Amino acid sequence: MTYCVGVLVDDGLAMLADTRTNAGLDNVSSYRKLRIMDVGPGRTMVVASAGSLSVTQAALTRLSDAMLLAEAEPADPPTETLRTAPTMFRAATLVGQALHAARAAVDEAVGGDKVSTGASLLFGGCIAGRRPRLFLVYSSGNFIECQPDTPYLQIGEHKYGKPILDRVVTWETTLEEAVKVALISFTSTMRSNLAVGLPIDLMQLRAGASEPELVHRITDDDAYYRELTERWSAAMRVATSAIPPPPYGEAGRQGVLV
Amino acid sequence: MTYCVGVLVDDGLAMLADTRTNAGLDNVSSYRKLRIMDVGPGRTMVVASAGSLSVTQAALTRLSDAMLLAEAEPADPPTETLRTAPTMFRAATLVGQALHAARAAVDEAVGGDKVSTGASLLFGGCIAGRRPRLFLVYSSGNFIECQPDTPYLQIGEHKYGKPILDRVVTWETTLEEAVKVALISFTSTMRSNLAVGLPIDLMQLRAGASEPELVHRITDDDAYYRELTERWSAAMRVATSAIPPPPYGEAGRQGVLV
Repeated sequence: MTYCVGVLVDDGLAMLADTRTNAGLDNVSSYRKLRIMDVGPGRTMVVASAGSLSVTQAALTRLSDAMLLAEAEPADPPTETLRTAPTMFRAATLVGQALHAARAAVDEAVGGDKVSTGASLLFGGCIAGRRPRLFLVYSSGNFIECQPDTPYLQIGEHKYGKPILDRVVTWETTLEEAVKVALISFTSTMRSNLAVGLPIDLMQLRAGASEPELVHRITDDDAYYRELTERWSAAMRVATSAIPPPPYGEAGRQGVLV
Repeated sequence: MTYCVGVLVDDGLAMLADTRTNAGLDNVSSYRKLRIMDVGPGRTMVVASAGSLSVTQAALTRLSDAMLLAEAEPADPPTETLRTAPTMFRAATLVGQALHAARAAVDEAVGGDKVSTGASLLFGGCIAGRRPRLFLVYSSGNFIECQPDTPYLQIGEHKYGKPILDRVVTWETTLEEAVKVALISFTSTMRSNLAVGLPIDLMQLRAGASEPELVHRITDDDAYYRELTERWSAAMRVATSAIPPPPYGEAGRQGVLV
């Protein structure tokens, strides 16, 4: 399993992903799922992946191979790649095509075997200092774009961490605050699902910048993340006890309902 | 969709269920999913249901028909029913058999149609003032029992509401507090999934008692539930802003990772 979240606020874009992969609980490994693509100066493109590792790795390799080949053997007219796509939308289209093709190839290979080849990606970034954009690319290659009304997108094990995002994050939330809330959504997810685990990779891209201001790995011994987890647990208990007890005892029993 | 939760603490047992059913978002209805079974004096048995309504309704009808028939036409030796089962474990076995049989009948009826017949039940109660017990009965009829280490069981849309239960409820939690936390888990679920909705049915059974001390329906205009929802939203925002911002900005950018 996996949990990845991207938060797109007025201030900028943050993307976070855990690093745990498993093929059953007895086969757990650590793989980077947040990748800063090498797309040349003046542009930032970041991918977070969930689902079949063979599919997502193949999709990313298709994208980076296409950039290599386009430069080694220029075509006429030139093949569009992540280095040359003029807009983030066009780049997301390339990512969708790569995921679709990678999944089709793996589907053909696995044939009738009952192997899950589902996969999804978060794709975010910006070109030439224009406003950052964030997309969720589905297995089939189609995608949706993050909008200010719900300024985040999640893939993987998304449910445990969704309530806090829904209640706290808005378009006006600062980028630091957005990262904090995303980390809270990670502690809720990790508390409830063992298949999501540290380290967490984090990327921050400020609106107006062309390059990430921060690419960071949060590991087991990270003092801030530990403190955040403990404070959040304590705050949940305090918030719960601050709410008065249910008054329904006074209503009494309303009869047997069969 | 559905969300049902049972909390079993030293103090007693609480069971809660929403009432929304849907066959697609364009076909939403309200059905009681928490049922106090009519099992005679000195015993309480309560069922909460999730999944295929045709399966869970058939399972419950099998159980109540069996009680009727055993009294109308006594067999020799007598057929065991929820009215005569000597322990909650034996009663849970009957519930499991009824669910298994109901599902098998519906499976045969739907044949190759792509209709989901999955269903699960929470089954709780007590006999003769003995300690309340709580079970989760799976579609196949097998079941697990709630234990003090994790003093709650959920069925249906369980993920959104799980983090708060995990962080706050222990075996020592009072029954009132357990109901409050269960209601908080409902607000988190309803905030994130439209297919879970008010009213919520609630049953409280105090340890040592033979009958529920409370059977109550929480409706749209319930002042306490509204206040709980608002206070919880506010507390989430306060708790979030009380945590200091992430310090990672100082770490700086760690290089491009392809």
